[in-house]
Amino acid sequence: MIKIFGKNCIREAIRANHGLKKVFLTEEAAKKDSPFLELLKDKKIPYSIESKKGMDSLFGNGHQGYGAYHEDYKIYDESILESITASPKRILILDGIMDPHNLGAILRSVDAFGYDAVILPKNRSCSITETVAHISTGAIEHVKIAYVNSLSVFIERLKKAGYWICGTDAKGTTAVSDVDASLDLAVIIGSEGFGMSRTLLKQVDYLLSIPMVGHVNSLNASVSAGIVLFALRK
Amino acid sequence: MIKIFGKNCIREAIRANHGLKKVFLTEEAAKKDSPFLELLKDKKIPYSIESKKGMDSLFGNGHQGYGAYHEDYKIYDESILESITASPKRILILDGIMDPHNLGAILRSVDAFGYDAVILPKNRSCSITETVAHISTGAIEHVKIAYVNSLSVFIERLKKAGYWICGTDAKGTTAVSDVDASLDLAVIIGSEGFGMSRTLLKQVDYLLSIPMVGHVNSLNASVSAGIVLFALRK
Repeated sequence: MIKIFGKNCIREAIRANHGLKKVFLTEEAAKKDSPFLELLKDKKIPYSIESKKGMDSLFGNGHQGYGAYHEDYKIYDESILESITASPKRILILDGIMDPHNLGAILRSVDAFGYDAVILPKNRSCSITETVAHISTGAIEHVKIAYVNSLSVFIERLKKAGYWICGTDAKGTTAVSDVDASLDLAVIIGSEGFGMSRTLLKQVDYLLSIPMVGHVNSLNASVSAGIVLFALRK
Repeated sequence: MIKIFGKNCIREAIRANHGLKKVFLTEEAAKKDSPFLELLKDKKIPYSIESKKGMDSLFGNGHQGYGAYHEDYKIYDESILESITASPKRILILDGIMDPHNLGAILRSVDAFGYDAVILPKNRSCSITETVAHISTGAIEHVKIAYVNSLSVFIERLKKAGYWICGTDAKGTTAVSDVDASLDLAVIIGSEGFGMSRTLLKQVDYLLSIPMVGHVNSLNASVSAGIVLFALRK
């Protein structure tokens, strides 16, 4: 079980219509937000109304009056490939993203730009925590997430399945605008600080770079993911 | 005075060559990183070597062995306009960004895409805190930041100075790719949750939208800023 909080998070969980076990509201939120209360009744979702203090002890300080117990999110494994039937296909591979804020923000972009799945390696990855769920503001309800044993092995499977593999690196030679958007694409975003691992660099079909002119020459990982996902959206 | 920490932050402050008052290193960092120590000596920057415990008490847990005292960053006011001489000009206006993580990530994008300045309203804005400096990983050393009394009044000044004002909104009708990049542009990013304020919406020349297809239909503020800054880079 996982605790989620914040109005947007809870609303998306209701909309996605799975996994909500019980919703908690402060007295103030219950009083002010009768449409929300009606929605809970209508969907027959158990809820209870708590004092501010009670909510704080359950959900910390950031709940804004809304919290819930939620089943663990469905996590896929390598078999996720079979469940992707869209055309063209889009997969995001995160090679070593450890920061829950970045992962949460990336899930929003994945949902916004219609990507079919997010793949993370079992080691060297952020887990799906309450912070990830919260920062995703509900996007996590709609995004398929898989943890795989080896990114390298998985990428070989992707290639056999017809995907074109797009790496991202400061030394990239292909502009994002030069990739044919009608192809099935798997986009790899590396970790902050270290970028993509060398093994994966050797497996890519396109090595993309984001042209930058500044002094620091690096973007936040969720920002560079967002820019590439936007540029290679369906 | 402000405390900054993390190797990238400190390295950028050295490179920018202003504001560093004293650098602190853990014994381990000093031992491992002799090029860094040489750099400090070379630039005649005062430093001291501290125990891990001493560093933790000075800079918290995230210092990675490196910390520094830094003068307060130079903050501009309305007069910043006169200092912008580039052509074409690019200004980012942040209408109600409160989160220091978002502001720090946005400063990296501002530097990376060569924007000339960031404008924030004195009220309803995140201040330049240690967190902002840290998350910016040194970009803050290179970006001009101004706090102005009224965004609305400042935007009128921008218009008189020949800038085209680009708002961003889900209801926007102009694609980012349709804006002429040779113009002097001021781009407004609204707050998370509330977007741009109504007064500013009425002042824009272009209302841009980022096309999205997902369920949640919203991006993290630093991600949407990054996408627009990238699309409208010089």
